[in-house]
Amino acid sequence: MVKGAGVGRPRASGAAANRPDARQAVLDAAGELFTGAGYAATTTRAIAERAGLRQASLYYHFPAKEDILAALLAGTVRPSLVLAARLVAGEAAVAVRLWALAYADIGLLGGARHNLGALYLLPEVGSPNLARFRAERAELKAAYGDLLEAAGVVPVAVRTDLVFGLVESIAVIRRDDPELDVEAHTREGADGVVRLAGLPEPTEELRAEAHALLATSTD
Amino acid sequence: MVKGAGVGRPRASGAAANRPDARQAVLDAAGELFTGAGYAATTTRAIAERAGLRQASLYYHFPAKEDILAALLAGTVRPSLVLAARLVAGEAAVAVRLWALAYADIGLLGGARHNLGALYLLPEVGSPNLARFRAERAELKAAYGDLLEAAGVVPVAVRTDLVFGLVESIAVIRRDDPELDVEAHTREGADGVVRLAGLPEPTEELRAEAHALLATSTD
Repeated sequence: MVKGAGVGRPRASGAAANRPDARQAVLDAAGELFTGAGYAATTTRAIAERAGLRQASLYYHFPAKEDILAALLAGTVRPSLVLAARLVAGEAAVAVRLWALAYADIGLLGGARHNLGALYLLPEVGSPNLARFRAERAELKAAYGDLLEAAGVVPVAVRTDLVFGLVESIAVIRRDDPELDVEAHTREGADGVVRLAGLPEPTEELRAEAHALLATSTD
Repeated sequence: MVKGAGVGRPRASGAAANRPDARQAVLDAAGELFTGAGYAATTTRAIAERAGLRQASLYYHFPAKEDILAALLAGTVRPSLVLAARLVAGEAAVAVRLWALAYADIGLLGGARHNLGALYLLPEVGSPNLARFRAERAELKAAYGDLLEAAGVVPVAVRTDLVFGLVESIAVIRRDDPELDVEAHTREGADGVVRLAGLPEPTEELRAEAHALLATSTD
């Protein structure tokens, strides 16, 4: 282990709010507590304690508990939203683009350190503080709809609901089995999205093209 | 309107615990409050008030708030479980039986008065009081697995996870759009389960056979 600031630091040490990783420490602590004990049962005091910060320092970064929830949930949609914009505008076969989006999105939700997709059904998600998350999640869903429409899927609205439901269902699957083989579920989930849309059975070639497409996105 | 006991009765009237509909009144009130305000934010006092009962009367039927949650969640799996046992042992084509189970199950979750499937991700579902619900839900999932296995679906475990995830995703879809066309989503959802399993595209004939199978189950 590397010696240095922060290593072995006891929690709840009252570190300064401007500690470079303070914001991230709050998010990590909150992600663990919200998905474990539950959102309502978790106090900002408990989050600050777990993050090794004073409560005042937590408020410096997040004025309200819902702001922490909003930041955590933003992280579950934004990377997929950036990718979706590129894929919707892309020129590869539409089934390839759909597979790529589903693969990346399920991988993000399934592979994140905490199972934040399990928070999507919280009543607090309806509050004004979460409006931006709701809009971004709706935008991501609309991108799936655009791809399904481009593929000629009918009825497109209902199938988009189901496809998006399948993608997000990784949160329940993960909750039921924390030892999940995420990669197998991500690959099968992306195949499943293509099948569910009613498009031809995905081939190895399609998957390889989609992976190539995803590899170019990280440039 | 028929005149009689209970008609036009004001809420929170302190009706006796042995009022024949007291138990159901508690479940209705709790279903509304748990899915609206949230489970953690709802007190047994608020449930009793909404149900038109004294809190002591509520405790007579449900010693703890989790017992109300357990009773509500039991109602979301038991009817499907009874049907699943019959379908797994049945002799119709396996895709027909799978479609029938998915159709009835999505219809139950999607058509119930309150969106109780939205409570599946509550941390409280992990508590000892909810053990029976967890076991019954696992049994229902296993029935989907039995049908997929009988259909020769490979890999059966991952596909069962996805199929069950798609069925239950009706809760998120309903939350997103309370004005949902439930019948369209139920029919498309059952088609989707067959597609997702990787079985041949469902036909009108398959759907008709499945409906006939379901009609005989209500005898």
